[in-house]
Amino acid sequence: MAPPALKESPLPDTPISTVLLVIALHAEAAPLVADLRLTQDSQAVFPEGVPWVKYSGTYEGLNVHIVTPGKDGIHGCDPVGTVPASLLTFNSIQVLKPDLIINCGTAGGFQGYREYGVGALEATPVPKLISALQLKTGVLTTGDSLDHVPEDVVIMKANDATVKDMEVCPLYMPFGGAAIAYVAHLLSVPLIMLKGVTDIVDSPAATDEEFLANLSLTAHAIQRTVSKALQFISGKKLSDLQ
Amino acid sequence: MAPPALKESPLPDTPISTVLLVIALHAEAAPLVADLRLTQDSQAVFPEGVPWVKYSGTYEGLNVHIVTPGKDGIHGCDPVGTVPASLLTFNSIQVLKPDLIINCGTAGGFQGYREYGVGALEATPVPKLISALQLKTGVLTTGDSLDHVPEDVVIMKANDATVKDMEVCPLYMPFGGAAIAYVAHLLSVPLIMLKGVTDIVDSPAATDEEFLANLSLTAHAIQRTVSKALQFISGKKLSDLQ
Repeated sequence: MAPPALKESPLPDTPISTVLLVIALHAEAAPLVADLRLTQDSQAVFPEGVPWVKYSGTYEGLNVHIVTPGKDGIHGCDPVGTVPASLLTFNSIQVLKPDLIINCGTAGGFQGYREYGVGALEATPVPKLISALQLKTGVLTTGDSLDHVPEDVVIMKANDATVKDMEVCPLYMPFGGAAIAYVAHLLSVPLIMLKGVTDIVDSPAATDEEFLANLSLTAHAIQRTVSKALQFISGKKLSDLQ
Repeated sequence: MAPPALKESPLPDTPISTVLLVIALHAEAAPLVADLRLTQDSQAVFPEGVPWVKYSGTYEGLNVHIVTPGKDGIHGCDPVGTVPASLLTFNSIQVLKPDLIINCGTAGGFQGYREYGVGALEATPVPKLISALQLKTGVLTTGDSLDHVPEDVVIMKANDATVKDMEVCPLYMPFGGAAIAYVAHLLSVPLIMLKGVTDIVDSPAATDEEFLANLSLTAHAIQRTVSKALQFISGKKLSDLQ
């Protein structure tokens, strides 16, 4: 059964001045923070006590913010999962008022295509950006549940190599789907998902080994692609991406 | 393996003036809204576009707010699940600045006790409240995942009847646990979980039939118990609950 996709709506003529990058893992964010020369600012934009981290700066005339969930105060690990991601995205939208959100990071991939979604939120097609950067599009899923963690999110199309191991997804999500998409939709902010594939979910190799082996490589591929995306976005309106 | 419970910390001497009740389903909230004579206010406390609903008023000298996730804008159903619950709780804390949160509603119960948690957040023991209302305590779980929906939350102790079918849980949650507990902990707001048991998870009867049959009954039991809890809380400090 085809997913109940929503109708596309055209993007407005709003100039893009502020871009919010939501990234789950510090290791994924680090190369990009360095490349864009962002600085971790001490300005208290988040509620007291949350472990979230913000890096900000100007790149190609854009106000760029990278936010990550930081480290869990109790367990010391990266607080991955839909709840921290949704809260971080929600609060960042309220405080930073971005014109565009890019969720970038690593994801697992399937070998070949597989229809996996049970419903879909269709959002923010950006064919001009995809064409300019020669990216591949795909379907992001969270399985069949409202609440699978982002690590369960899998890109439906296996990856080739080098720059092509980036996919920009015009956001086909299972309903209830990934937390960031849910929040972006809730607050009506355009969202692009830029994902690098770190492992092949249905390959016989152990995915944690693959993940660690590929994380650094993929983080740098993400950095290169996001930088190019920001260069393309600079000076444009939202409608220019369609 | 015993869950890695945190050390109890004493509650401060803060007077309780504002209480936030977070309730997942409209059907659970309705009897309480009526009994407390709260009114749905049109004041724009939430971001534009969210379906969340707030009922407010004064009861026994307390500022009382009930918030529910409302209806999902796309699918028309109650947007249950950890992501909407966490966002609603987060934003309500920021806007309403409650001294105390009560998460009340229905939950499934096991026949007898079963250790189910894999980790625990220990929070806000309120023995004086428990004693005054003659409530039973229990362990709330979300299974072993960061992200199971609240409907997966089960109370570990089966219920008897009448007023005893309310349990006040001094919040033993699996780590990463239920979204509301996560947010309350993140923003350091004391939280009490008041749950009425609607069905027996491990009984052979179909749980959806049990749920529907018991929902109205349990919602009224919740209403009676929450009213009593607010009467007890009125005029007290947080430390008076311990």
